[in-house]
Amino acid sequence: MAAADPKPSETLDAFHRGGFYLLQPRGRGHRAGLDAMLLAALVPDRNGETLADFGAGAGAAGMAAANRIRTLQVTLFERSPEMAGFAHRSIALSQNRHLADRVRLVEADVTLTGARRIAAGLADAAFDHVIMNPPFNDGSDRMTPDELKAEAHAMRGPLFADWIKTAGAVARPGGQLSLIARPQSLAEILTASENRFGAIHITPVHPRPGEDAIRLLLTGIKGSRARLSLRPPLYVHDGAGQAFSPAVDALNNGKGSIER
Amino acid sequence: MAAADPKPSETLDAFHRGGFYLLQPRGRGHRAGLDAMLLAALVPDRNGETLADFGAGAGAAGMAAANRIRTLQVTLFERSPEMAGFAHRSIALSQNRHLADRVRLVEADVTLTGARRIAAGLADAAFDHVIMNPPFNDGSDRMTPDELKAEAHAMRGPLFADWIKTAGAVARPGGQLSLIARPQSLAEILTASENRFGAIHITPVHPRPGEDAIRLLLTGIKGSRARLSLRPPLYVHDGAGQAFSPAVDALNNGKGSIER
Repeated sequence: MAAADPKPSETLDAFHRGGFYLLQPRGRGHRAGLDAMLLAALVPDRNGETLADFGAGAGAAGMAAANRIRTLQVTLFERSPEMAGFAHRSIALSQNRHLADRVRLVEADVTLTGARRIAAGLADAAFDHVIMNPPFNDGSDRMTPDELKAEAHAMRGPLFADWIKTAGAVARPGGQLSLIARPQSLAEILTASENRFGAIHITPVHPRPGEDAIRLLLTGIKGSRARLSLRPPLYVHDGAGQAFSPAVDALNNGKGSIER
Repeated sequence: MAAADPKPSETLDAFHRGGFYLLQPRGRGHRAGLDAMLLAALVPDRNGETLADFGAGAGAAGMAAANRIRTLQVTLFERSPEMAGFAHRSIALSQNRHLADRVRLVEADVTLTGARRIAAGLADAAFDHVIMNPPFNDGSDRMTPDELKAEAHAMRGPLFADWIKTAGAVARPGGQLSLIARPQSLAEILTASENRFGAIHITPVHPRPGEDAIRLLLTGIKGSRARLSLRPPLYVHDGAGQAFSPAVDALNNGKGSIER
């Protein structure tokens, strides 16, 4: 068995219909899915840009962006040594050979400040784009004895505030922030974005027409003073079944992007 | 000519398909329309409640709520003496006889504070519901030489902040705030609502499917700590023509409400 092969406690999962693969903990921890693929779909296809993926986990969103945009240079930032290990081994998978020279991993906490932040690879104005899918920090969320999952889903303290502050530092002027969040985080996100990111675009993601949004996709431009826009919604399903709508299926499989 | 009859510089306009009428300045000032009717549609039909309409203009939203909800007691607050005059004469119209004993007018600035606020009829915890459609305060809006319109559309300084602060004072615990705004005011509204109104529900209003929202409808509950929700959008038009969609047409005509 090669070093990158899955152990019994792990799974090897295909994304973008086999465009790239991730090693992930089996049945525990935060497992990447539609959220990460929608987040990656917010990254515009512009030649030779750099992207930082904050809280990258096993690397799903950053690698999805790299797989769709063949000139993108991606840095995954992950604080958890265990999840960083999954990301490291995922980059090394033979199936991801086409990504390996454009995706690198930094084991670091994106809430570091000052000299420690810069020493961790989070230099000022270093990235064209920052993406993030932060752990939920809502105490009312169902708690779990699973510590990995608790780390990913129920972290305490201000979260978007610190993450967006760091994003504001490491994004170049005119650079883009993109994130996926639950609607209840909207006020915190907008407050943290003030005086850092403008021209905010919000795309609500609803399970089906007529139902409340379960996620919001949000992008902003560093230093812009342009107005906030509420974009047309996305529907995960448009029929009675569990199949994705054509629009979401395309985004989930790296066949398009959500344009600003 | 009776005192309430329109002068040549005025119009007499039917709302709710003739359910009530407004006297308004002809071709100048802010003329009530769909915004005011959608705002009124946010008011739930509960027996014998009290409603404050902040910045009521000629009284469109407050009177629309009173026309649909036959037990609602409405107080219109309007700062401009000229617009308050239109509201006063509109209440007195014979066509509005069914509303006259449930709609009263107070000529006052809702940004008053302390004892002056209370003296103006804006007492603490006095209302079950506060509605507002504040003037736009965005300097990038096209300016106009028309002073009435400038007063309604381009007022300077913090606006939602002051209005929502007063709403937080005059709403009873558990009372509701409802407002209509442009999407670019969202951050200001959420910041002002913090620690005053929770359980925020946002309904984006789009001209047509696939187009960015032009308005947002927002409600909140005083003192609630419940989460923000992004509700299903409303579409003003659902075809190629200028006719309202069935949902918006019903709301525009007082034939329903937007339920929380």
